[in-house]
Amino acid sequence: MPVSEAFAKLCVNEKPPAESAVAVKSLVFKPKTPKSATPVPIVVVALQSTTTPSALIANATSSKDPRLARDDLVKQAFQSESARAFILGDLANATSNFHLLIDHELGTVDGDTILQLNDSTYMKKSDMMKFLNNFEDSQKVVDFSQEVSKETATEGKKQQKKQQPSKAGTAAAAAAAALEDAKLIGITVDKALDFPGWYQQILTKGEMLDYYDVSGCYILRPPSYAIWENIQKWFDDKIKAIGVQNAYFPMFVSSRVLEKEKDHVEGFAPEVAWVTRAGSSELEEPIAIRPTSETVMYPYYAKWVQSYRDLPLKLNQWNSVVRWEFKHPQPFLRTREFLWQEGHTAHLTAKDAEEEVLQILDFYAGVYEELLAVPVVKGRKTEKEKFAGGDFTTTCEGYIPQTGRGIQGATSHHLGQNFSKMFNLSVENPLGSDHPKIFAYQNSWGLSTRVIGVMVMIHSDNKGLVIPPRVSQFQSVVIPVGITKKTSEEQRKHIHETARSVESRLKKVGIRAFGDYNDNYTPGWKFSQYELKGIPIRIELGPKDIEKNQVVVVRRNDSKKYVVSFDELEARIPEILEEMQGDLFKKAKELFDTHRVIVNEWSGFVPALNKKNVILAPWCGVMECEEDIKESSAKKDDGEEFEEDDKAPSMGAKSLCIPFDQPVLNEGQKCIKCERIAVNYCMFGRSY
Amino acid sequence: MPVSEAFAKLCVNEKPPAESAVAVKSLVFKPKTPKSATPVPIVVVALQSTTTPSALIANATSSKDPRLARDDLVKQAFQSESARAFILGDLANATSNFHLLIDHELGTVDGDTILQLNDSTYMKKSDMMKFLNNFEDSQKVVDFSQEVSKETATEGKKQQKKQQPSKAGTAAAAAAAALEDAKLIGITVDKALDFPGWYQQILTKGEMLDYYDVSGCYILRPPSYAIWENIQKWFDDKIKAIGVQNAYFPMFVSSRVLEKEKDHVEGFAPEVAWVTRAGSSELEEPIAIRPTSETVMYPYYAKWVQSYRDLPLKLNQWNSVVRWEFKHPQPFLRTREFLWQEGHTAHLTAKDAEEEVLQILDFYAGVYEELLAVPVVKGRKTEKEKFAGGDFTTTCEGYIPQTGRGIQGATSHHLGQNFSKMFNLSVENPLGSDHPKIFAYQNSWGLSTRVIGVMVMIHSDNKGLVIPPRVSQFQSVVIPVGITKKTSEEQRKHIHETARSVESRLKKVGIRAFGDYNDNYTPGWKFSQYELKGIPIRIELGPKDIEKNQVVVVRRNDSKKYVVSFDELEARIPEILEEMQGDLFKKAKELFDTHRVIVNEWSGFVPALNKKNVILAPWCGVMECEEDIKESSAKKDDGEEFEEDDKAPSMGAKSLCIPFDQPVLNEGQKCIKCERIAVNYCMFGRSY
Ligand SMILES: [Zn+2]
Ligand SMILES: [Zn+2]
Repeated sequence: MPVSEAFAKLCVNEKPPAESAVAVKSLVFKPKTPKSATPVPIVVVALQSTTTPSALIANATSSKDPRLARDDLVKQAFQSESARAFILGDLANATSNFHLLIDHELGTVDGDTILQLNDSTYMKKSDMMKFLNNFEDSQKVVDFSQEVSKETATEGKKQQKKQQPSKAGTAAAAAAAALEDAKLIGITVDKALDFPGWYQQILTKGEMLDYYDVSGCYILRPPSYAIWENIQKWFDDKIKAIGVQNAYFPMFVSSRVLEKEKDHVEGFAPEVAWVTRAGSSELEEPIAIRPTSETVMYPYYAKWVQSYRDLPLKLNQWNSVVRWEFKHPQPFLRTREFLWQEGHTAHLTAKDAEEEVLQILDFYAGVYEELLAVPVVKGRKTEKEKFAGGDFTTTCEGYIPQTGRGIQGATSHHLGQNFSKMFNLSVENPLGSDHPKIFAYQNSWGLSTRVIGVMVMIHSDNKGLVIPPRVSQFQSVVIPVGITKKTSEEQRKHIHETARSVESRLKKVGIRAFGDYNDNYTPGWKFSQYELKGIPIRIELGPKDIEKNQVVVVRRNDSKKYVVSFDELEARIPEILEEMQGDLFKKAKELFDTHRVIVNEWSGFVPALNKKNVILAPWCGVMECEEDIKESSAKKDDGEEFEEDDKAPSMGAKSLCIPFDQPVLNEGQKCIKCERIAVNYCMFGRSY
Repeated sequence: MPVSEAFAKLCVNEKPPAESAVAVKSLVFKPKTPKSATPVPIVVVALQSTTTPSALIANATSSKDPRLARDDLVKQAFQSESARAFILGDLANATSNFHLLIDHELGTVDGDTILQLNDSTYMKKSDMMKFLNNFEDSQKVVDFSQEVSKETATEGKKQQKKQQPSKAGTAAAAAAAALEDAKLIGITVDKALDFPGWYQQILTKGEMLDYYDVSGCYILRPPSYAIWENIQKWFDDKIKAIGVQNAYFPMFVSSRVLEKEKDHVEGFAPEVAWVTRAGSSELEEPIAIRPTSETVMYPYYAKWVQSYRDLPLKLNQWNSVVRWEFKHPQPFLRTREFLWQEGHTAHLTAKDAEEEVLQILDFYAGVYEELLAVPVVKGRKTEKEKFAGGDFTTTCEGYIPQTGRGIQGATSHHLGQNFSKMFNLSVENPLGSDHPKIFAYQNSWGLSTRVIGVMVMIHSDNKGLVIPPRVSQFQSVVIPVGITKKTSEEQRKHIHETARSVESRLKKVGIRAFGDYNDNYTPGWKFSQYELKGIPIRIELGPKDIEKNQVVVVRRNDSKKYVVSFDELEARIPEILEEMQGDLFKKAKELFDTHRVIVNEWSGFVPALNKKNVILAPWCGVMECEEDIKESSAKKDDGEEFEEDDKAPSMGAKSLCIPFDQPVLNEGQKCIKCERIAVNYCMFGRSY
């Protein structure tokens, strides 16, 4: 058979060096068919690193629920020994029709690259493509990477259809955004051209996060979890200093308790996940997983607080909550399970509670500005946007330059007495029992792993992650350089030893440093690796540096170089890290400041919005007017490209907050939208 | 009406001082009845602090699903204005039959105590009982506190019936165990006489934990969560030092993934909680909540590990897992959701993996012995008791003297290549591709909040909690003493200021200290409070101490007193705390050592077991023999009292572990139970 001979000929006999080959998998899937029908097998050829969700395979082949084929089908269709032993060459033996799906990511691999097809088969990329072109009729290129977040095998049959129309457009845009000189390991899309694609790549290739086989859930890998730990430590110290104690309440809530506060539960009910079965027993009543813990905790607050001396009661928990959103999930920003802290406090007076709300908001702004180098605007939410069931909500709001959208950073709510009346959290009046009893004044406040997503969007670039030094898992990598074939073994050893001593001196002063002394990789390869992963500074050390008793330090964010003498290592490196931290903040702040514009007339509103600004506008404070602003500022369907992850193709501007720091409102200034007098400036914007 | 007049007469007109009155609630419940039937109202009179679960009320009145009655029933049955306005005096107006349930806890309140019945009604305890005795026919005393853990309104209809037979016996035993001089706030049962009742009280009254309205779930209040945080910090530092990194994987698992490893899943399947619904939508496939994360994590390990250079991969997570046990729950020991850490590592060689398993086990023993002052025996689990799906399990085993039962402390598993073969977690052989590829060698290891329960059972006493200083949320309380009516305001101030300066000096050297300067409570009352809560040392400071420039330090565990001069505070207090830590361990170790006995002949086995020992016995290592030992050592139903929480009335001895530290096995020594030659000493015991 000529075709199968062709395959054998194309194989490379010589095994390439282990690291240079790119692993490719070929898998056979079987769609679900009625018993009487013959299934058409689906062959998927993809990079080993590409996830190929069943739903996408189904979509591309118009078949139903494809699963990995068993031996019988693979034997019968391709005369392979088993499903496991299947190899692309077997396509030549096909006894009937099949589908051939080719991973779009293969396009990023250079034609001369050697691919590893299984334990012992290697082939040049261009040769494999030649071979596959024998089956041109069955062939289709599928962009698994663009779609993996939206689809899983378990759900979304309906969504599939909805998304199809936008797919073609997206694929074209993605192709345009592919970075010219991108290497396989690096980022292959441009932040400026395909922001969602870039965001996805940067998180997965930077090893912050991985996609998970339950839709809307993600794995936090060590680099992102370490950032969370650093935030936890900072914030935990702050709240403990003001008397907050940590506790842990169960993740389950009975429906009776969950539904106690009506306004509150209405906001969450559509997203609550319900446990109805344990082992093989149906539960008598379904039990909810907490979407937040107000109704979980407050019945016990009412029990524990027996006297005004038991107030204030200030508890916090670090936990995860579940909100089963049906909107398009986004890593860190909109996920079905997420990590957060939730503080819940009860006070004797409104004044105490209100002071704390603002104190906590300052801590939240501190997490963003001091740790993550992300500028935020503090303010109050409008009645429309506040936490349901509370009195008022304070917030810190961020800004994403690429999309020009605002993003809610973290919120601190004053609940007033609404919940305490509902749960009878009350004490006798300290003035005596002839005075009325007092219902506690309550707050709740939360900060989630969303902060990490905001940080990534703001600082990272086309080379990979940029992580502020104060929160980065590692702050510095030491890399020996200048070792060539001419370097003697003794010299090499000396360089390595010196580098190790630099690493260990840095660790001793508390810098999170590590070294990469692997001789199998070039310094250039290592530079790219650690740029991708966002290590804040790299410290290079070669023979010439040793002669001069110095190291060369390169900052991740702007490649700025510093020469630091050995004597000054302990003093200078922390300074350089702090300088970088400061510069990241400064740059982000300038961008936010120049894209937060004052607009006093409606005619300027939408144009300013379309220039990727958020807007400070005089506003009357009336909810109907707020809704009118949103509707009137929605993009009309005029053929303009919309971002894939927009909730609707015509998203209007929402109120983000009423900033505490207010521009001066002129006497008699009217609302930007209606005829009423403005009561203050409100910040509006398209938002996440 | 004479009875209602009687009630009014019994009321106390003068309002007692706020703190001395004990709050009592009277609630009216309505059982579920067919529409045609007239419901018999149920009046519950209970301490404000007593929880009165619906299921228990149902049980005591043989009625169904009682709920708080609405106005209409209360108006009709007692002519009260509303359900809220109902007061005990209204019983005199009853137009028909009713049930009257009286909280057993009221028995602990002295007859002369003033009870507060609502905002303005006060009555002497003895008078209230007199009044209630007017309704002797309807009346029943219910022990809500003993039963609250077993019953919730949401489930357990079947369990109720099962538990009834044992209830009468328990109530009698509980009455006998009630401590003679117990005060309301203190522990009212004797550790030696009613261990389960004592354990429940000590946890709730000591404010470690509270019962929750979803059965089998508990609230970890700050004192217990702080212990967990101290353990976390210690253990986290240890594992990070050996290269483990923290991460977070989703709590949800698809059924396909959960069921991948058959042996493994069989162990968990009956306890898995399933989410089947989100908001009002049924999920297409049910999703499990992780009972442990092997199958959650390993598919991604297989994806991430592409080369032997990616090994070892060592991840840990701090999270909660859910195992929906249907056995009787026990706070900390057997709960449906619990907090733990789970480490999962993959290694290139078996040797590396096995070394780590033991290293981790040493850390676990360190948590018990160094932090919690709880002695443990390290060893290996038998084939019968090992982790399903793994190669071998190592464990540290503790001992509870009151019950004579062993308790599994924490386990560290070597999984071998079982999971790596299942999930294809493999790498090319470092020797070259002509050598076979290598499946990773894996470990998993976990330590849960169970440790806190073990610690409480071992050290605490009839006065309350005893918590080892190294893990206690607070280590020391400063209490001014010797202030009488004769003390001048100036003197009082001076004592308080000196006490505050002691507190602040201790805090400066890192001692977790606080002071209680509240003049409304006597020193004696404070002493009891902090003994109940297990604060390791209290520091007393009165006028005479100030004259002598000294404080008096009293240890919680044995009331041992130390006099410490002001000059030596910073040096001596940490020493005293460490001495107490050491003494707690020493005492517990002596008890374990004297109750771990070597038995070589079967005739001595059960008698030794019945003397509350665990047993070291020569053993053949055969699983059938292990089962035989268990059956043969089960208590026969000979009228002996069984503990309430025994899984079966005739629990036999299980193998606890094969200790690493082995007694010398004589040549030719036979197995304790069968005719085979013993291969080592195995530790057997009744167990939790
Ligand atoms: Zn307006
Ligand atoms: Zn035997």
